[in-house]
Amino acid sequence: MNLAAADEARQPSPTDVPVPAVDAAPHEQDVPWRHRHLLDVDVLSADDLELVMRTADAMREVLDRPIPRVPALRGSNVTILFYEASTRTRVSFEVAAKNLSADVVNIAAATSSVAKGESLVDTIRTVEALGARMLVMRHSVSGAPYLAAEVFGGSVLNGGDGWHAHPTQALLDLYTMQRQLPGGTVAGRKVVILGDVLHSRVARSNIWSLTAAGADLWLCGPSTLLRGFDAWAVHGAAAGRRFQVTSSIEEALRDADVVMALRIQRERMASGLLPSLREYAARFGLTRERLALAREDAIVLHPGPMNEGVEIAPDVAVSAQSRITDQVTNGVAIRMALLYLLAGVRDGG
Amino acid sequence: MNLAAADEARQPSPTDVPVPAVDAAPHEQDVPWRHRHLLDVDVLSADDLELVMRTADAMREVLDRPIPRVPALRGSNVTILFYEASTRTRVSFEVAAKNLSADVVNIAAATSSVAKGESLVDTIRTVEALGARMLVMRHSVSGAPYLAAEVFGGSVLNGGDGWHAHPTQALLDLYTMQRQLPGGTVAGRKVVILGDVLHSRVARSNIWSLTAAGADLWLCGPSTLLRGFDAWAVHGAAAGRRFQVTSSIEEALRDADVVMALRIQRERMASGLLPSLREYAARFGLTRERLALAREDAIVLHPGPMNEGVEIAPDVAVSAQSRITDQVTNGVAIRMALLYLLAGVRDGG
Amino acid sequence: MNLAAADEARQPSPTDVPVPAVDAAPHEQDVPWRHRHLLDVDVLSADDLELVMRTADAMREVLDRPIPRVPALRGSNVTILFYEASTRTRVSFEVAAKNLSADVVNIAAATSSVAKGESLVDTIRTVEALGARMLVMRHSVSGAPYLAAEVFGGSVLNGGDGWHAHPTQALLDLYTMQRQLPGGTVAGRKVVILGDVLHSRVARSNIWSLTAAGADLWLCGPSTLLRGFDAWAVHGAAAGRRFQVTSSIEEALRDADVVMALRIQRERMASGLLPSLREYAARFGLTRERLALAREDAIVLHPGPMNEGVEIAPDVAVSAQSRITDQVTNGVAIRMALLYLLAGVRDGG
Repeated sequence: MNLAAADEARQPSPTDVPVPAVDAAPHEQDVPWRHRHLLDVDVLSADDLELVMRTADAMREVLDRPIPRVPALRGSNVTILFYEASTRTRVSFEVAAKNLSADVVNIAAATSSVAKGESLVDTIRTVEALGARMLVMRHSVSGAPYLAAEVFGGSVLNGGDGWHAHPTQALLDLYTMQRQLPGGTVAGRKVVILGDVLHSRVARSNIWSLTAAGADLWLCGPSTLLRGFDAWAVHGAAAGRRFQVTSSIEEALRDADVVMALRIQRERMASGLLPSLREYAARFGLTRERLALAREDAIVLHPGPMNEGVEIAPDVAVSAQSRITDQVTNGVAIRMALLYLLAGVRDGG
Repeated sequence: MNLAAADEARQPSPTDVPVPAVDAAPHEQDVPWRHRHLLDVDVLSADDLELVMRTADAMREVLDRPIPRVPALRGSNVTILFYEASTRTRVSFEVAAKNLSADVVNIAAATSSVAKGESLVDTIRTVEALGARMLVMRHSVSGAPYLAAEVFGGSVLNGGDGWHAHPTQALLDLYTMQRQLPGGTVAGRKVVILGDVLHSRVARSNIWSLTAAGADLWLCGPSTLLRGFDAWAVHGAAAGRRFQVTSSIEEALRDADVVMALRIQRERMASGLLPSLREYAARFGLTRERLALAREDAIVLHPGPMNEGVEIAPDVAVSAQSRITDQVTNGVAIRMALLYLLAGVRDGG
Repeated sequence: MNLAAADEARQPSPTDVPVPAVDAAPHEQDVPWRHRHLLDVDVLSADDLELVMRTADAMREVLDRPIPRVPALRGSNVTILFYEASTRTRVSFEVAAKNLSADVVNIAAATSSVAKGESLVDTIRTVEALGARMLVMRHSVSGAPYLAAEVFGGSVLNGGDGWHAHPTQALLDLYTMQRQLPGGTVAGRKVVILGDVLHSRVARSNIWSLTAAGADLWLCGPSTLLRGFDAWAVHGAAAGRRFQVTSSIEEALRDADVVMALRIQRERMASGLLPSLREYAARFGLTRERLALAREDAIVLHPGPMNEGVEIAPDVAVSAQSRITDQVTNGVAIRMALLYLLAGVRDGG
């Protein structure tokens, strides 16, 4: 694995979270983690977030070894049940689980007989009876993993549900920012999420984790694709979830520390909410010229896969400011950390 | 794995079959098993059935361990070649093989290049030359695994062929009944198979194993879906395969000990043999009212996946009498037992 | 695995290549191999070819063990990224990698979200960031693996690209010939490649390796399917790549030592270059009568999957002269050898 990336060294953490020794099994560790499932990031406290980040640090160290493997989850069955086609998230979880010595079962429900009229609840019960102890699930219906968690006897990890949430993506985004930003924190930093916020589970989960971590968060895109977020911004302020909403890309990008371009999903074009791809690229594409409005050392993120030339220009994607490839490797580390932490709860509980 | 099911304790077996110590490799054991392949249950003697059941007991004990794994088949290649889409059977075999420390290769022939005009015999020869020692096979053509067994140098396990046979399903059904029934045997017990018997390989294999085990077997469904079984019932009586056939669900369910509802396959509707789903549910659906005709402690089985509200009512599927989830876990144990027993023959022979 | 094939014993090699002790990790060995990628066979020297053959011998010895596994690549991530449907090549690489104790990640890009507009370069970068150290790739576009090799930090193995190259197939073909021919060499032997040469990456790669090994190579097929090879034959002679081109099957087969029938791909019929399948079979099908023109001990090869009755008669495919099943097993050995050799370069470099 190419981990020789030019990541800046992590700063010591302000809080004092005990980090598990990840070569050992999680139930042998005294770790202050209490969540059995990972359904979204909204329920994670600042200490929870810090523990995930520190455990991911330990997993990055494992990834740097010649054989990137620890025996922590040896013999545990991790089942990956995806109702939507996916490559990177599915493989990322698979590699993460194998690096922890777990056994992985892949079920591509979209193309399998699961699709033939069986209820979700029956499928979840069956998967558990087949031996699954941890269930990674992606579903096109928002909330499906919450239903699964009510039925499943083990731990459910949400790998993306509808437009609702994609918590491991938000956590790997936060981790990537913290590794890159001077001081090792997003607190007070201007972070811009740019694009089709309306249809984006990535954006929704990032709103929770970035506001919890104290970022100066901005959402930017065509007004049709920000619908409802203005109201949330006002309401959220009261709940301590403060963010700005704008359709002015200049206002958003000015002096930004982090710019995250979202993927434009071509299938959304039919909704009538989106201008043409050409028009979108012209008005909201992240070009080198626009990026110049941000801070000189601003970093660029994208959850992938990219439509180069639409939401992001090819030269920006591969520029020195891009951390898009780091996100992918950090995603493996974050998913290792979460599988590890959740397994500890279950083993101990 | 949620194995804390409320299974009643197994009664001691009437026969005295030596049970293998399944932590060791099968060829180191002195096991009275002589079948190289598992194509259907019709050739299994009472002692064979008892040996499968006792070996499955040993495998259930493995499944209850924190790490449900024995080294018995370490380094053996188990190839799962499925010409029909499947989730639960495919995953059940995969988990069973991995629990025995075998290596698993999955080939979804339905969607792979295997489909492109290569003969079955060539595919089997190729799979063997690629390293397969045990071949689990599902095919839409009845008899296909028998052809495979003539060519393949290792062991063939039939994972379902056309309407013909599904032997591991029949064995897990028998095992589930024996674990649940007082006295640990189906001998003399009234067992009802309810639904589309005509198109069901599950029913056909169950007829062999349940009559061999001495059950009082009843087949029930619309008369168009029992076609030919009346004649077999008469003929079978002479061969010692005794069962009853009826379209009266009241007659079938009265005082039953076990009720197994079959899956209605929606694609059969086109055949004209089946009434509408609504009409089928009204006349033959397993509802709580109808189940009340059976013994108070009768158990309910279903091979899955269920069409809830068609062949089985949702409240019956999750009632205290349902053993549907147990069937799934028992399926892993039965498949572990069969892989183990067949590997012993081959290694020794 | 059925390795009890009637292979003749290998003759000692004329050259004196040091063979690695394949039970050990490749970087612990002093092996004269310098290629980081395997994109085609054209760059392999005679000594390179000899080293691949001798390493494959060592891997065949591993395949004959009860547990055909060595720890050489323990913990290495081998990712198999196939943009075209495949069974035998994909499984062959998977089994080869597992026999070396590597971890395998399968990505069927044809049916996955990779297809949704992401550039090949982004996919390759992502796969590497996910942990891949060796990348096996099949793509419908000629040259795609060369592009991948420019981006990927590890080793790329070409599993077939468009009409261009299929190097592991050519190497397993050469290995099968060398094991079978008296003297253990193809030098001076008449080798015939028969069929749709124009669209065949198998033929193109075999031209390089067979001419390098000194075979008397003949290409035979309908003139429309040999287009351009006449010119190459003339030009190639100057470059030391000598072969004959003919549409006379009698001339080609007369006194041949090896006959390799290529697969007719039915989807090529639309091109208008091919006669009907019936006409093709009548004029160029490899029948017993035609094979009688070759030497009595001539061997028959086919890359598979076969269209029996089209390019090859069923009785020829299973005759004593056929080495088609041996090719499959040799393919596993060759791929083990190549993964091993390439890993050594990377680990040491």
